[in-house]
Order: sequence, then C-alpha cells, then structure tokens
Amino acid sequence: MRRLLVIVLAAGEGTRMKSALPKVMHKVAGRSMVGHVLETARAAGAAEIAVVIGPDHGQVEAEVHRLVPAASVFVQRERLGTAHAVLAAAAALERGYDDILVMYGDTPLVRPQTLEALRAPLAEGAGLAVLGFRPADPTGYGRLITWGEDLVAIREEKDASEAEKTIGLCNAGLMALDGALALEVLSGIGNANAKGEYYLTDAVEAVIARGRTAAVCVAEAGEVAGVNTRAQLAEAEAVQQLRLRRAAMEGGATLVAPETVFFSADTRLGRDVVIEPNVVFGPGVTVADGGVIRAFSHIEGATLAGGVSVGPFARLRPGARLEEGVHIGNFVEIKNADLAPGVKINHLSYVGDSTVGEGTNIGAGSITCNYDGFSKHRTTIGANAFIGTNSLMVAPVTIGDGAYIGTGSVITDDVPADALAIGRARQVNKPGLAARLRERLQAIRKAAAEG
Amino acid sequence: MRRLLVIVLAAGEGTRMKSALPKVMHKVAGRSMVGHVLETARAAGAAEIAVVIGPDHGQVEAEVHRLVPAASVFVQRERLGTAHAVLAAAAALERGYDDILVMYGDTPLVRPQTLEALRAPLAEGAGLAVLGFRPADPTGYGRLITWGEDLVAIREEKDASEAEKTIGLCNAGLMALDGALALEVLSGIGNANAKGEYYLTDAVEAVIARGRTAAVCVAEAGEVAGVNTRAQLAEAEAVQQLRLRRAAMEGGATLVAPETVFFSADTRLGRDVVIEPNVVFGPGVTVADGGVIRAFSHIEGATLAGGVSVGPFARLRPGARLEEGVHIGNFVEIKNADLAPGVKINHLSYVGDSTVGEGTNIGAGSITCNYDGFSKHRTTIGANAFIGTNSLMVAPVTIGDGAYIGTGSVITDDVPADALAIGRARQVNKPGLAARLRERLQAIRKAAAEG
Amino acid sequence: MRRLLVIVLAAGEGTRMKSALPKVMHKVAGRSMVGHVLETARAAGAAEIAVVIGPDHGQVEAEVHRLVPAASVFVQRERLGTAHAVLAAAAALERGYDDILVMYGDTPLVRPQTLEALRAPLAEGAGLAVLGFRPADPTGYGRLITWGEDLVAIREEKDASEAEKTIGLCNAGLMALDGALALEVLSGIGNANAKGEYYLTDAVEAVIARGRTAAVCVAEAGEVAGVNTRAQLAEAEAVQQLRLRRAAMEGGATLVAPETVFFSADTRLGRDVVIEPNVVFGPGVTVADGGVIRAFSHIEGATLAGGVSVGPFARLRPGARLEEGVHIGNFVEIKNADLAPGVKINHLSYVGDSTVGEGTNIGAGSITCNYDGFSKHRTTIGANAFIGTNSLMVAPVTIGDGAYIGTGSVITDDVPADALAIGRARQVNKPGLAARLRERLQAIRKAAAEG
Repeated sequence: MRRLLVIVLAAGEGTRMKSALPKVMHKVAGRSMVGHVLETARAAGAAEIAVVIGPDHGQVEAEVHRLVPAASVFVQRERLGTAHAVLAAAAALERGYDDILVMYGDTPLVRPQTLEALRAPLAEGAGLAVLGFRPADPTGYGRLITWGEDLVAIREEKDASEAEKTIGLCNAGLMALDGALALEVLSGIGNANAKGEYYLTDAVEAVIARGRTAAVCVAEAGEVAGVNTRAQLAEAEAVQQLRLRRAAMEGGATLVAPETVFFSADTRLGRDVVIEPNVVFGPGVTVADGGVIRAFSHIEGATLAGGVSVGPFARLRPGARLEEGVHIGNFVEIKNADLAPGVKINHLSYVGDSTVGEGTNIGAGSITCNYDGFSKHRTTIGANAFIGTNSLMVAPVTIGDGAYIGTGSVITDDVPADALAIGRARQVNKPGLAARLRERLQAIRKAAAEG
Repeated sequence: MRRLLVIVLAAGEGTRMKSALPKVMHKVAGRSMVGHVLETARAAGAAEIAVVIGPDHGQVEAEVHRLVPAASVFVQRERLGTAHAVLAAAAALERGYDDILVMYGDTPLVRPQTLEALRAPLAEGAGLAVLGFRPADPTGYGRLITWGEDLVAIREEKDASEAEKTIGLCNAGLMALDGALALEVLSGIGNANAKGEYYLTDAVEAVIARGRTAAVCVAEAGEVAGVNTRAQLAEAEAVQQLRLRRAAMEGGATLVAPETVFFSADTRLGRDVVIEPNVVFGPGVTVADGGVIRAFSHIEGATLAGGVSVGPFARLRPGARLEEGVHIGNFVEIKNADLAPGVKINHLSYVGDSTVGEGTNIGAGSITCNYDGFSKHRTTIGANAFIGTNSLMVAPVTIGDGAYIGTGSVITDDVPADALAIGRARQVNKPGLAARLRERLQAIRKAAAEG
Repeated sequence: MRRLLVIVLAAGEGTRMKSALPKVMHKVAGRSMVGHVLETARAAGAAEIAVVIGPDHGQVEAEVHRLVPAASVFVQRERLGTAHAVLAAAAALERGYDDILVMYGDTPLVRPQTLEALRAPLAEGAGLAVLGFRPADPTGYGRLITWGEDLVAIREEKDASEAEKTIGLCNAGLMALDGALALEVLSGIGNANAKGEYYLTDAVEAVIARGRTAAVCVAEAGEVAGVNTRAQLAEAEAVQQLRLRRAAMEGGATLVAPETVFFSADTRLGRDVVIEPNVVFGPGVTVADGGVIRAFSHIEGATLAGGVSVGPFARLRPGARLEEGVHIGNFVEIKNADLAPGVKINHLSYVGDSTVGEGTNIGAGSITCNYDGFSKHRTTIGANAFIGTNSLMVAPVTIGDGAYIGTGSVITDDVPADALAIGRARQVNKPGLAARLRERLQAIRKAAAEG
C-alpha cells in the first residue's frame, strides 16, 4: 500500500462570493466545502491530510480540526500562486509519502474513485498525473497537450496557438505527484512570469525534464467545477443533491418528487422509505426501513426507527430519537427526546428534553416547558400514559406509567403511575351575557356614529 | 359497439424496485400504478377488465377489487412469458369479446384515446394492432418491421440485422387482438426459444399466417414508459404531474409556480382558483371557483366551496368540508368537520370531528378535544359564536348560536345560545417577585462558581 | 433631456385566461402585470404615463392610480385595433412630448434598459423605432423587413412571401415614435383590411412616406413574451423569478436551492443573507445583512434587521419588524409587531398587534389575544421579560420590564415591572383513578361485546 498525503489548498479569499465567511466554509448539502474535500481525502485513504489556509482564516482551521482532528494546518501568509501554496505544507511533504495529491477546498464534488484513478499512474511509474475534463466551452482553461497516453504540457489559454486552442481537454487543477520527487520539483519552480507567481502547472515540465512521464486522468466536467460565486455554489449544491437523490432511489427509497427533497451529505435511508414532496434533511439523520416522511417536513440530527410516520409539517431537531412505529403529526416539534415504540404526538405540540414511554399518546397542543427562564430541565413520561389536550408539563417533572392528564392541565408536580392528574378552573356559563355584551357594544357604536 | 375485454398484466415481481410492496402497487399522483391502468381501461369503455397477478399478490387483488369490484382476477402461478400471462385469463377470453386489449400494470401513463386508436384497426378488419413508439435511443427494444401501413414482424434486438437496427419505431408492448381469433392464436404460441418462454409478440406472425393484417399505432415515448426502478417511478410521477398542472391551467386556474404544485389524479379545480407555490393535494380534493390555496398547504379528502382561502401552512384532512368564504389560516388542521359559510379559523388550531355554524370565529390556539384516550366524540358549535383564544372544547359538547367563550377556557359542558362561558383561574400579580427570583438565582450561581 | 410619454395598452379582454379578473391584473412576482409595466415606464423616466383600459375595467383603473396616482387613464370603448387603442390617449399625445413609447399591459418582463435602447434612435433623428426579437419559431409573428440598419416594413405572416417567411426577426409590438409626428401619423392610419381594424404597425409605412427613417432595436425573446394564458403567466413568473434569484446571488446572498425560493419584485436582501430551500417572499420584505431565513418560511410586508434567524416554518405578516438578532422559530406567526433586539419567540406562537422589548423571551404556545370579537387591541411587553409557556395575553394589556409570567396564565390585567404574574388552577392528583377508568371502560366494552 502506497502511503498518501493529500494537500488541500484552501487559502483563497473568495471575494466574488461577497461574503464575510471564508469561501471554503460555505456549505453544500449541509457540509462546508472544505469538509467535503476532507471527507473525500479520508475516503481515498489518505495517511495524512494537510490543509493550507489563508491568514485570518481561524474559522477554516477550526472546521478542519473539528472534522479531522489529526489534520495538519498550514498558513500561506502571501498568495504567490499554487506551487507556493503547496510548499506552505513543505513540513508535511518532508515526512516522506509515496503519493502526493493536491486538492482544492473550493472544488467539493470530486469523488474518492476519481482520486484513486488520478493516483493510479504513480504506482505504474509516472512522476505526475493531472486531472483533466472536457468543459462545454474550453475558453479560458489551460489545455492539456498529450502525446499518446502521456501529458506533454499544460498550455494556458493566453500562450496557446490556434491549433492548441481547439483542444477540448482542459486542466482541472488537481494533481498527483510522486512523493519521492515532489519537494525537489516544487522547490525548483520559478516565478519568472507576468504575475510573478509560482505555478503548480510548471511541475509538468520539471517532471518530464527529470525523465519521468506525466499522465492524464479524465473526470466528468460536473465533478471538478470550482465554486467562486454564489451562483456556482448553488450549482454545486444542485449536482450534489442530484447524486444524493439518485443514490436514495437506487437504495430502494421512493422519492415522489426527487427535485423537492434536500438531503445532507450524511443522510441515511433504509428500504421502502417513502419521502413525499418538499422535505429537508439537515445533517445527522437516519431513517430505517419503511419510514414515511410526509410533505413539508424538516429533519436534522434525528434517528428514526422502522415504520415511523412523520409529518406533514413536522420538525425533528437534534437528539430526536423515534423508535419503531412512532407517529409525529402536523405542527409538531421534537428536540432531544427519546420516544419509545408506538408513541403518538399528532398535533401542534412541542416535546423537548424528554423521555416518553411505549404507547403513550400526547394530545394536541401539549408542551413540555423545559426552560424556566434560568435553566433547562427534563420531562419524563411513562408508558401507556394519556396526556390530554393542551397539557403543559413544567420540567423537571415525572409522569408515571398509565397516568392520565386532564385536558388543559398545568403539571408542576410528579404524577404517580395510574393516577389521574388535573389542574384547571371549572367552567361557568353566564346565560344571555354574550347577547347583552353585543347589544351594549352596538349601542355604544350607534351613539358614536350619531355623534 | 364492439365489446371490449382489457387484460392487464400485473404479475411482475419488480425486484429492481427493491421493495416489499408489489411493483404495481407503487403510486403515481396518489394512485397505484395498477389503479391508473384500471381507470384508463374503464375510460376506454371496457366491458370486462381481467387482471393477471402474481402468486402472493393479495395486495394487488384487494386493490383491483377496491377500485373495480367487477374485475376478474387471475393468478399466473409461474412466470413463463407474456403470452402465458395473457392465457392465465383464458376464462375471460372464452366469454367472447369483439376486441381484446393487452395492457401492463407498470405502464401507468397510457391515455384512453391511445387505447381507442390502438383498437381502431380491428374494426376495419385487422387481426391485431401493436402500439409503437420512437424512443430517443432504440437500443434494446424490439423493432417494428412495417410494409406500407402493415406490420410485418416484431424483431427483437438480438435477432435484428444491422439494417433493422436502424429502425426507430419500437414495440411498446400493448396489443389489440381480434377477439374472434385471440384464444386460438395465443394457444398456438410455442416456447421454442432460448429462455423457453411464451412471447405475446409471436402473435403477429400467427395472425399474418391466418391471412389477416397486423397494424401499428404510434404513441408518444413518454406515454408508454414502463416503471422498473424508483427513478423511473419518479419520472412517471413527473410526467403525470406535468399533465395535471397543464390541465389545471387550461381550465382557468392560476398556478404561480406549477413545478411546485403536486396534484392527485382526481383533484378537481374550478375557475380562478389561485394556487401559490408549494401545495400538495392528496386524493379526493375539490376546490370550487375562486378558491385561494396559499403556499405550503397540504390538502386531502377535502371539499372546498367557492371563495375560500386556505393557508399558508394549512392542513385539511379527509372529511373537511369548507363552505363559501371559509378562511383557514396558518398552522391549522381541519379533519372531518363541516364549516359553514364565513367560518374563520386563522391560527394554530385543530378542529376535528366537528360542525361549526355560519360566521363563527374560532380564536388562535383553539382545539377540539375529540379523543379522550378511549373513543372519539363530536363537537358542535352554532352560528355567529366567538370562541376565544386557546379554548379547549372537550367533546362531546355543544355550543349554541351566538355564544361567547372566554380566552383560555376548558369547555366540558354545553353552552346555551347567547351565553358567555368561561373557565379559567384569576390572575394574581406578585410585585417584585420576578426580580427577587432572579437575584436569588444569581446568588446561587455566584456561590457555585466561587466553589 | 427629451420628455417621454409612455402609453400602456391594457384594454385586452384576455378571454383565454378564463378568468373574471381583467388579464393585466393577474400577478407576476406578487405584482400585477400592469404594475410591472408601470414600474418599468417609471424607471425609464416617463414624464407622463397614460393607460388605455377596456370598458368595465374599474379594477385596472384603481390599480393604476394606486401605483401611479398621476397616471392618466383612458377608456377604449370599442376594440378596433392597436392604433385605435393608442388614439384613445390622444389627449395625452396632444400635450406635446418628444418621445412616445407604446407598451403593453400583458408584456410584464420588458426592462427599463430595453426601453432606453428603443428610444435611442429617436434622439438620432429616426421617426420611429420598433422592438424586434428572434423567437425559436417565428411562425405567426409579423416579420421585420430591414435594409441595412433601417426598418423597411412589418410584414404579417399571411401577407409574407416564402422568402420573407424565412426571416427570423419578428415584431414584439413595442414602438417608439417621434412625438412631433405621432398624432398625425396615427390619425392617418386607415382600416381598409380584412378585419376592419386600425393597426399600429401601419405607422412604419406612414413614417417612411414622410421621409423619416424607421429603426429596429432587438430584445431577447424571453423579455417580450406576452401573456395570454395561465400557462404563459406561469412562464412569465418563472422568467421573473430567475432574474430575481440571480440578482440576489450576485448581491451576495446564499440561496441553497434557488429554484425553490420565490421572491416578490420588491424583495431586498443584504449580504450574507442565507435562504434555505422553500421560502416564499410576499411583497414588501427587507432582510438586512447576515439574516438567516430557514426552510418553509413565508414572509410578507416585514422588515428584518441584521443577524435575525427566522424559521423553519415561520410566518411573518405585514407590519412585522424584527430588530437585530431576533429569533423566530417554528410554527410562529408574527403580525404588526415591533420586536426589539434579541427577542426570542421559538415555538407555536402568535404575536400580533404588539410591542416586545429587548431580550424578552416568549415561551412556546403563547398567544396575544388581540381580537375580542368586537375590536382589535394592542399588547405591550417590556424588556427582559419572561413569558412562560402557553401564556395568553388578553389585549389591551401591558407587561412591565423584567416581569415573569407563569406557565399557562391568562393575563387580563397589567403586570408591573419585575412582578411575577400567575393565573392558573392548582394541580390535583387522584391516585389510581386512571387505572379505574380504564377498567370500567373495558368492562363496559366487554359487556357490549358479549351482547
């Protein structure tokens, strides 16, 4: 097994994003762009991941360490070109790896299998391999000049002859380098050009000059699209969603209207899951076999067992754990709550920081009052309980198995198992009073109108 | 009038769906695929519909009988080819029909007029007619070899010459047969082929051998697409939704963003109905002239009279009947309820198993408590009543015309007409107590922090 | 500066819309079509706008005067062609303008810069300029016959030679006329044609006959599309939404799924605003820098300061004013309310006709009862107050700074600053009663079952 170092260039300013957020922190499918690249590097088997960030990009450093604690992070103080950026990670290169892969933090759609294909020529003796693609319009891209299977040169648009401009195969930027010569080759790259920058593409010539071959690996155009504007960010999101929807359907889920379902990169669905139109999955969601997610549902950080039914108009927030056959209905919010098998919460409720036992039914309008203005507390409800309409459970509070809460009660004290708890005022009817109130009001209005 | 027998082949296993549900039971526009085919057969004037199902497909049999109680259902015990499947319905063929139409349970988009066109050659003397289409890429399909207007043969891809492979007209599978020779022709088909199966396509040769002509009827490619995967199911849904949206607009409804509106096959809309973006119609909905359905509404099994306004964020469930000018606002759920003209339920309410009289206003947060943990009960509210905010009506209960319910009351007893009913605790103010609680808490926190 | 008169022809019946509403009153991006045209005319610097409406089109007249009080409105009593319609505004023409622009009330996508380009030839001496476009299929459109840069004639399809039919440049209808000869030219147009109508296109010949040149200005096909059917209305909406989404992204907003976000023509977004999928903006919305609008939100007539977070499932209605850092959560409706910095309303609430002070937290299920069945009243809540779960505030009512409202209270009287207010019944537990009720019910059921 050849040991792999992936260097992720993530120092770009991204001014065309018009954002206070560093470019690579913008999200695709609920995950930062740099997070996608790190995940791909990890999946491709990197022994080390080195990330080159810009100065003042503490947010990027924190994101990298959150996702890959062992990653090494280097700061490129000045922006003097791609080769210069790679050399910011010289300390990692010096640790001696077989293969070096250069990736970009703003190119989030590259797949692990493409990295594998890009590395393959190194194992067969090539000194370098470049990722190519065929854009609909090659204008502006560097062209890949090949001879047989070998890459001869990367020609920038401005230096290309008319004949070279007809070449459709362009440079996607990603590069694989033989670890044995990477540091020497990169260090030798000069900046004698119009902009005075150090270009990674010059490595091709340097490798060939050392008598080694350069190879080309071709990717789909959609996969290597870089993100420089909000519109391109939306396009990347669209490509990623297409992939996720297709994978969900191939796995045996029904998406009634795939174009209206938005997944996170880590959403997991079982077989015979049915997803109605207009469902949004935030990060961290698992839905087991046979789950039904009805229209207009918003789910994040939630674990759903088999046979659950959620929505329409349901919101599951982080820490919602729904066991077998749980039903969550409309205008219901669940947060940080364990719902045992068969629990039903069908209408207009908020259940948070709670544990609810098997078979318990929570009536419309019920709310767990988990925050008293000072701290958050927990509500525990037993099995087979019946929580009447509009019950307010003031946490911390425990309601026993089989308990019955009367409609409209405010529950401040624990309720023993099998007890009935009630806390509401008696109804009083005042005959004729509504009619008299209306008459009085009409008289007042009439008097006012008559001046 | 020629009497028509439609035979629907619905025995396929559908393994590529990766589903526990029989393939033809998967839904398009809220209706099972076999349901669409049955509906089309009915609309084409079938005197009898025979459905051939697979063993262990009790769910399909139940669905067929639910939708067309008079349909005959036959089980194909072994899957030995399409001709074999048709012959599973031999008993129906023996009843003697003029025209026989063979349809497929997984081809839900065929329209009645296409069936009519396919039958037409029989009335003019043809022995058989085959439905053809022109796919973008004919590879893999059987080609229709024609001579003038006559069909000469169906050539499978593997048996086709290079010249024949250039033919773009392909076999869609649907076939019309003269009832007088169908049984004889089908019984004569052999299985001397690589797979040892009985192919319906062999009927062409047999009909011609009997000196009768075979005809071709050409359908649009989109119409005859079969569904074998979840992705194809989503594509069929998309085609069906396009048709339904176009029909709605042609009928005089405004769809602000047609691509975000999802209809059921049976949705009925009047003129000048306006549908905002993101509306989902389940089965059984009618909206009369001038109704406005605002964004993010979910409606199923509901009848809406003229001039109603629903949503945004409204959910109407089966049995919701809204008369002239009813207003339903946001985060409101209506189920099995009759709402008389001018009723307003504008915010955060659940009204179920209820009758509400003309002009009554139901305040925000009001809930009919129709379930007591044991059975469901009915709430009856008269005309011109005012139901104050957060009223809980514990069914069975009746509230008279012109009654007024005070804010936050739990109504357990009937309220006479024109009475005012109230049931809540008195407010008590405890001056300075909030400030003292805050101070005490801060002191505790400070003490804790100081250890 | 040449003074400009824009004449908007808006008298069409629009029978193909199948609507009781005059055609130009149908909306695109939340604004009537005629409203779009008026706005474009205004932006192009019109000194006067004259609108020609049909008889019985009082609704159009009202809309015109609502949007442009100074506009002049003329009624075309009979529909005798486009030149006849323009002459309905003869009184405006007689006021003497340099440039006359003829626009159409059912062509809502034309941009101000296109009008400017169309007028430009007049300043350079042309007598007339016609707006052309190149449709995918020119069949049915009048063709523009040109000689060099000059327009020679507009040839209707039925009068065109085969050679002329191959011309792709077609007449979009919009026309600029030199004000000095407009009235004379238009008055001279006859109706000696098959339909006996007065055609504006005849002005071309008349202008040339007076020795003046006619010019052509070419617009994009999408821009000059007229709306005659509901399907075309939906297409115009789609084009307009594409423009608005693109502009939002270019301005530095993130639209996760642009195709699911619906703007009004006047929506304003700051930088680093993030809009999740499925958000609908009605008219009159501003979102300042860094605001986050989560999925499934519906916002109209609302002003959002920087750093707010809204949704998912939030509804902001007209008069909602959210200051810095306000949080609005799920199933929450805000109407005509001023929310000071840092206010939190996170779940299942309705706050209307209210003022809420800085840092105040409003608990789940809280409702301001602004309507008592007779009139609407206001709720005033101070700063740093804590409104417990399911509090009902019966307006008119004032709650002081730092006050604390106990869970489930109905607040009918003012609450002083720093006071604690509570109004609810005490909870009573009845041990074993739930179990006994269940047993009794089971006994009854068993007895019933045994008959």
